[in-house]
Amino acid sequence: MPLQEHHQIVSVDDHLIEHPRVWQDRIPQRYLAEAPRIVELDGKHIWHYEDRQFPTIGLNAVAGKPVEEWGMDPVRYEDMIPGCYDPAARVKDMDLDGVQAALCFPSFPGFAGGTFFRARDKDLALLCVQAWNDFYIDEWCATAPDRFLPLAILPVWDVEASAAEARRTAAKGARTISFPDSPVPLGLPSFHTRHWDPLWQACSETGMPVSLHFGSGSFVPGFSFSGKAPGLDMATDNVPFAVATALFSSNLMWSTVDLLLSGALQRFPDLQISLAEGGIGWVPYILERTDYTWERHRWYQDMDKETRPSDLFRQHFWGCFIDDEHGLANRHAIGVDRIMLEIDYPHSDSNWPNSRKRASEVLATVPDEEVEMIVETNARRMLNYPRPA
Amino acid sequence: MPLQEHHQIVSVDDHLIEHPRVWQDRIPQRYLAEAPRIVELDGKHIWHYEDRQFPTIGLNAVAGKPVEEWGMDPVRYEDMIPGCYDPAARVKDMDLDGVQAALCFPSFPGFAGGTFFRARDKDLALLCVQAWNDFYIDEWCATAPDRFLPLAILPVWDVEASAAEARRTAAKGARTISFPDSPVPLGLPSFHTRHWDPLWQACSETGMPVSLHFGSGSFVPGFSFSGKAPGLDMATDNVPFAVATALFSSNLMWSTVDLLLSGALQRFPDLQISLAEGGIGWVPYILERTDYTWERHRWYQDMDKETRPSDLFRQHFWGCFIDDEHGLANRHAIGVDRIMLEIDYPHSDSNWPNSRKRASEVLATVPDEEVEMIVETNARRMLNYPRPA
Repeated sequence: MPLQEHHQIVSVDDHLIEHPRVWQDRIPQRYLAEAPRIVELDGKHIWHYEDRQFPTIGLNAVAGKPVEEWGMDPVRYEDMIPGCYDPAARVKDMDLDGVQAALCFPSFPGFAGGTFFRARDKDLALLCVQAWNDFYIDEWCATAPDRFLPLAILPVWDVEASAAEARRTAAKGARTISFPDSPVPLGLPSFHTRHWDPLWQACSETGMPVSLHFGSGSFVPGFSFSGKAPGLDMATDNVPFAVATALFSSNLMWSTVDLLLSGALQRFPDLQISLAEGGIGWVPYILERTDYTWERHRWYQDMDKETRPSDLFRQHFWGCFIDDEHGLANRHAIGVDRIMLEIDYPHSDSNWPNSRKRASEVLATVPDEEVEMIVETNARRMLNYPRPA
Repeated sequence: MPLQEHHQIVSVDDHLIEHPRVWQDRIPQRYLAEAPRIVELDGKHIWHYEDRQFPTIGLNAVAGKPVEEWGMDPVRYEDMIPGCYDPAARVKDMDLDGVQAALCFPSFPGFAGGTFFRARDKDLALLCVQAWNDFYIDEWCATAPDRFLPLAILPVWDVEASAAEARRTAAKGARTISFPDSPVPLGLPSFHTRHWDPLWQACSETGMPVSLHFGSGSFVPGFSFSGKAPGLDMATDNVPFAVATALFSSNLMWSTVDLLLSGALQRFPDLQISLAEGGIGWVPYILERTDYTWERHRWYQDMDKETRPSDLFRQHFWGCFIDDEHGLANRHAIGVDRIMLEIDYPHSDSNWPNSRKRASEVLATVPDEEVEMIVETNARRMLNYPRPA
């Protein structure tokens, strides 16, 4: 019997919507007018930050709405169920969903802090990054430490400051950092450079895996979104965004192959990577294909000649899925000790409030001890978050 | 016992290198100086076309060389084995490899004619497209009609001319057209528009499937190749091209999802798509994911509300693989009647001269009747190329 009562679901990918005072409560007085704050405009709640307004407070926060009514992001806090922005209400929604613990990614900052990366004033931006981390760890997670898993975003424009913030947040309980699925679309050096080594060193020392959430690097997959010839816009005519939604895991295929052939994993043998919202069904194909390429092309290209990419994957990567039957059927080709369930509340991919029910369906033919690893113990191990005694 | 003597391998993806006189033999006198011709420069054979020189005559034509010696494209015809450019020698190499028939894609024109698309003089470019088709069908394939499968490239900058060329070549035996894996990176309208309908009509009427060869639309996958922020070049530092080689199938994932959500397949129920060199191991994941997205987002986005994407796939798509153990293990999730072997001679992915030996290894546990479909009868069916009585 799969998914038994005593299995606690530990979700490695959920989302929160920041309440209006997250930054106003924490940023020094002189910056308050520039720091993120909520304004009302035409009946909408809108984030105001520096001199920009941001059109949505809760991208894709559709939990609790029938699919036939989707299509508009919420424009006021009242449009969302309180579990989106209130941790006490979230715990109740998790109880309803049969979920024990959740790792929440940011909304206004972007999944990996891209909003602050793009800001004009980088002194303020650093304060905003730290304020989000303090809010999430000290305020949100502190309401229910056995239900919420601390995570930190970083000032990715400065690798030394990023390493410092990783260490600062680890010291107060952070279990993972959220990093762009690729730094390249942000104009930052790729995983193939040594630019990120100070951060990988900090993650290795503090035992924090790097969570790469798809889309966190700003790249939208699909020819009509990111494959256009320069200067031509007609390509997006008539293209439903569902194309990108269906394809977002290709970002993490790209990130995975970049990392596997970068040499970074050999330099940092303790570095761990979580492929948040990436799905897992593609992993066996990509590993087989990367090995095939490595076997044929490693002799004349700048890459490790000794270590098979698929072996590196099994030592360094963790796959995350919401509802991936093909991936589960092929779990042994991925590594049962490297697969984790995610809930994705309150986004459209989530099965809330039926996540536990749906998980028990997709895990119906999986043996008990593997179910326990997939829904609970793998995540507790990756995040160093043991079940309380 | 898999892959028996009487199974004839029909490869749906090989490549030829054009000999020096392909265009000089066919283009009207007044254009001869501008038309593609081979010149010698610093001891190299180089294509000269219009006012440009092209640095390689045989991209990736490494057949017959040990992998330790790869890394340089051939610079003279003598650097290649004659089977690259001589159809009689090719037949001997196919005999050595245990391959009955081959569908060859162009080299100098690009897999789908991109060189002519980018040309200045489109009158000459149309003549060059027609000359390649005449060369391949009337000269190359005619040397051994039971060994070579006619294919045509198109003047994709003009959809009516493309439809006319498809009809002209179908009348003289072409079995498929090679089309860019996506027209978008070329600056052409996407599969989501009705721009291509005249061509899909011509393909439907003539019974020619559309072969989408990965990379034929000029898009190179990977953040460091096609995901860069505008104006920033540092991202390519230290990045081995093996990253793109391992990831090229993501192009065809993108094309597949584009087509499945475009409405074009509903308008052209006879249209068939071949995913050349795309691999097949990713297909079950992408179909499951696209169905999942369609089920949740179809209500408010512009797409068919009735037809499941995975059902469309099984009616319209054909998967091609060289060496894909995961895909073969999951062949029933793809459709055994929709999977075809490819050889990829003379490129680096090919197992030549051991293609038949390697195919019998990867097909070792597949039942006889399925092996016959995968190596021979599916391709004969898709290409309307029955075995001679």
